[in-house]
Amino acid sequence: MAKLQVAIDLLKIEDAIALAKKVAPYIDIIELGTPLIKSEGLSGIRKMKDAFPDKLVLADFKTADAGELEANMAFGAGADYVTILGTTGDSTIAGAVKAAKEHGKGVVVDTIGVKDRVKRAKEAIALGAAFVELHAGLDEQAEEGYSIQVLIDEAARAGVPVSIAGGVNMNSIAAVKQSGVVVAVAGAAIYGAENPAEAAKALKEILNA
Amino acid sequence: MAKLQVAIDLLKIEDAIALAKKVAPYIDIIELGTPLIKSEGLSGIRKMKDAFPDKLVLADFKTADAGELEANMAFGAGADYVTILGTTGDSTIAGAVKAAKEHGKGVVVDTIGVKDRVKRAKEAIALGAAFVELHAGLDEQAEEGYSIQVLIDEAARAGVPVSIAGGVNMNSIAAVKQSGVVVAVAGAAIYGAENPAEAAKALKEILNA
Repeated sequence: MAKLQVAIDLLKIEDAIALAKKVAPYIDIIELGTPLIKSEGLSGIRKMKDAFPDKLVLADFKTADAGELEANMAFGAGADYVTILGTTGDSTIAGAVKAAKEHGKGVVVDTIGVKDRVKRAKEAIALGAAFVELHAGLDEQAEEGYSIQVLIDEAARAGVPVSIAGGVNMNSIAAVKQSGVVVAVAGAAIYGAENPAEAAKALKEILNA
Repeated sequence: MAKLQVAIDLLKIEDAIALAKKVAPYIDIIELGTPLIKSEGLSGIRKMKDAFPDKLVLADFKTADAGELEANMAFGAGADYVTILGTTGDSTIAGAVKAAKEHGKGVVVDTIGVKDRVKRAKEAIALGAAFVELHAGLDEQAEEGYSIQVLIDEAARAGVPVSIAGGVNMNSIAAVKQSGVVVAVAGAAIYGAENPAEAAKALKEILNA
């Protein structure tokens, strides 16, 4: 059954924890978005994990270099997953995987900026990533002609464990589930909703159906 | 005359400021490395700028998405420059440039992971970047067969303002200067030296010669 991940793109850890408290019953993975990480530093990860010791915490580091060092930082602060950019070299991913094995945690490779996402997803899994995030960033989503359908089609033919991020909402969640993802990542559809708990619950019900 | 930038890859802002105090007389740009940013958050940038109001402070965000938001965060915390990944889409760079213009600050595009660095450098300058960092990351430098000469050759034929990072030291600084860079970035050659001040002074003297 696909997990539900909430991507929290707020800038204050107190606001992020307050949001997480509302939606936690329906969420499997709590993601601290990259701007939140850069705003609060490692102490933000520690505070989130301390507040939700039974949830999986993902630190969206989007690491582009020093893979082992940065992954060790994230895991040391309490993260269960750390993201590494797929555009980076294999040695950066391999370094992060080494750190993940030592901590019993996982590396997620983020395909933002990658030209051939399916090919890179297969390579990343071969390098030891736990799963690969097929991802259109906030800037790409704002570009004319963007559709999540591209990611859904790629997930269906990837043949390796993937998540989808970039426009997961009530309109797309059934198709995202159908594509066979291991994780569906919702951001604005939850944190931007009038009632984040109801929004998370509705998404989770479709994943569980 | 080429500026000298020190890349500080320490994890505690107190250690970073202590190092910066030693080398400041010979340095034009103080860079907070990506691991330091992720470790300390925005408060690290603020502390560094407060300690060195007359130096240029570069926040090595390596932004891969939400260019305008992340650049605004860095400039708001006191950074004079923020780095954006060249592997990311043009809209991310353009968003960061928009924020830079509003703050009267600058965007530096980091070519880590870029296949054709010279081509991307020209595109980044056309998008409004202040300069482009021709960069081999720590992981790439550790790979067999790496040589800074590739970056030096690219700088010489780029025809746009570039810096070089990835192996700048006493062996390479003269060739780096000769290539016409606007900034030479030294990391381990300074922070890993027995006497960081002497190391920075020696590099600066060659740039000024």
